[in-house]
Amino acid sequence: MQVPAGLFLTFEGIDGSGKSSQCKRLDEALRRAGYDVVLTREPGGSEGAEDIRRLVLEGDPAKWSAETEILLFTAARRDHMERTILPALAAGKVVICDRFADSTRMYQGMSRGDLRATVDQLHNLMIGREPDLTLLIDMDPATGLSRAKGRQGTEERFEDFGLGLQEKMRAGFLALAAEFPDRFRTVDGAQDIDAVAADVLQLAKAALAARVKAAQQ
Amino acid sequence: MQVPAGLFLTFEGIDGSGKSSQCKRLDEALRRAGYDVVLTREPGGSEGAEDIRRLVLEGDPAKWSAETEILLFTAARRDHMERTILPALAAGKVVICDRFADSTRMYQGMSRGDLRATVDQLHNLMIGREPDLTLLIDMDPATGLSRAKGRQGTEERFEDFGLGLQEKMRAGFLALAAEFPDRFRTVDGAQDIDAVAADVLQLAKAALAARVKAAQQ
Repeated sequence: MQVPAGLFLTFEGIDGSGKSSQCKRLDEALRRAGYDVVLTREPGGSEGAEDIRRLVLEGDPAKWSAETEILLFTAARRDHMERTILPALAAGKVVICDRFADSTRMYQGMSRGDLRATVDQLHNLMIGREPDLTLLIDMDPATGLSRAKGRQGTEERFEDFGLGLQEKMRAGFLALAAEFPDRFRTVDGAQDIDAVAADVLQLAKAALAARVKAAQQ
Repeated sequence: MQVPAGLFLTFEGIDGSGKSSQCKRLDEALRRAGYDVVLTREPGGSEGAEDIRRLVLEGDPAKWSAETEILLFTAARRDHMERTILPALAAGKVVICDRFADSTRMYQGMSRGDLRATVDQLHNLMIGREPDLTLLIDMDPATGLSRAKGRQGTEERFEDFGLGLQEKMRAGFLALAAEFPDRFRTVDGAQDIDAVAADVLQLAKAALAARVKAAQQ
């Protein structure tokens, strides 16, 4: 089932908020409902972007300055947009992306406040497009941290932070939701996983219905 | 011998114009004259920038779009500035760089005219600094091409172009020299190599003298 102009959904939230699980649940639910879905993630999501991801995340964390890292992530995002996201949207598919530009805004802006303007300028210049709907899985950081630590294969780079930093990140994501109220919807991640998935699916279906209605007018 | 605030010299020109040889000649001449010199090149010139260079130049040339490539080259340049060029200038050294942002302006602008504005916006946002002196080694493309083809280890990526394209590139560099007359000086590359080196050395010494004089006032 095609969606007019596709639908671009992103998930954001602190580590351990359950974003990745919810991406998979939504992917399955929408496929069952007959939609063509592309499930992807950042950083990465295309061959070139995965190469850049490895360059940034596998080396010494002190190897790149914050500014160079923003340029590399923007290069990866540009490739991801060109090769994966935009072709899928043009084919009328639903794109579900685990993290997108809001993560860059939040993480880089958190590391040094003056970087937020740079992130935005680079985004406007080289990416442009925002998601149609961004689902923020909001969660108490203590719960999120304990869940993240309990997982295998977490990336230390982004996830080995303490509770104080996780609290700042939660506040950062909530501030982004307030900054972009048209496309952000906040979901209570403290509920059990099925209840979160139900809320997510309802929001996604509303966005799909709105897209179809808009195309008919 | 220290130069107040250092001196940032770049060489530009078509393939086979003798840029790299002239960089080495100037490096040797200034060292003999007692200056501390850092000889570097782009793309590359720092550990991280060389990693990015390999990512861009060693893969399939169609792997990256022009926009992603500009982002990657800008990331490499940012790293090169931070790790190599700016520290050397701060220490009062002369930095000689084989190609810099003008090559990006010329090559990317040549591949698609609308990219020049993007290159400039990215440069202004993430690099800022221009060279103090840019030496354009200007040469008849037929001569340059035959010299480039006679060399070992040339990079096919940039250098395996035909004569018509080399003529466009020469015109592109001359247009940049006209656009930035304060810092560009054009040297006749058709002369024998010693005569070119003498012209280059004279221009570099004039720039060094001007720098010292400006610092004394």
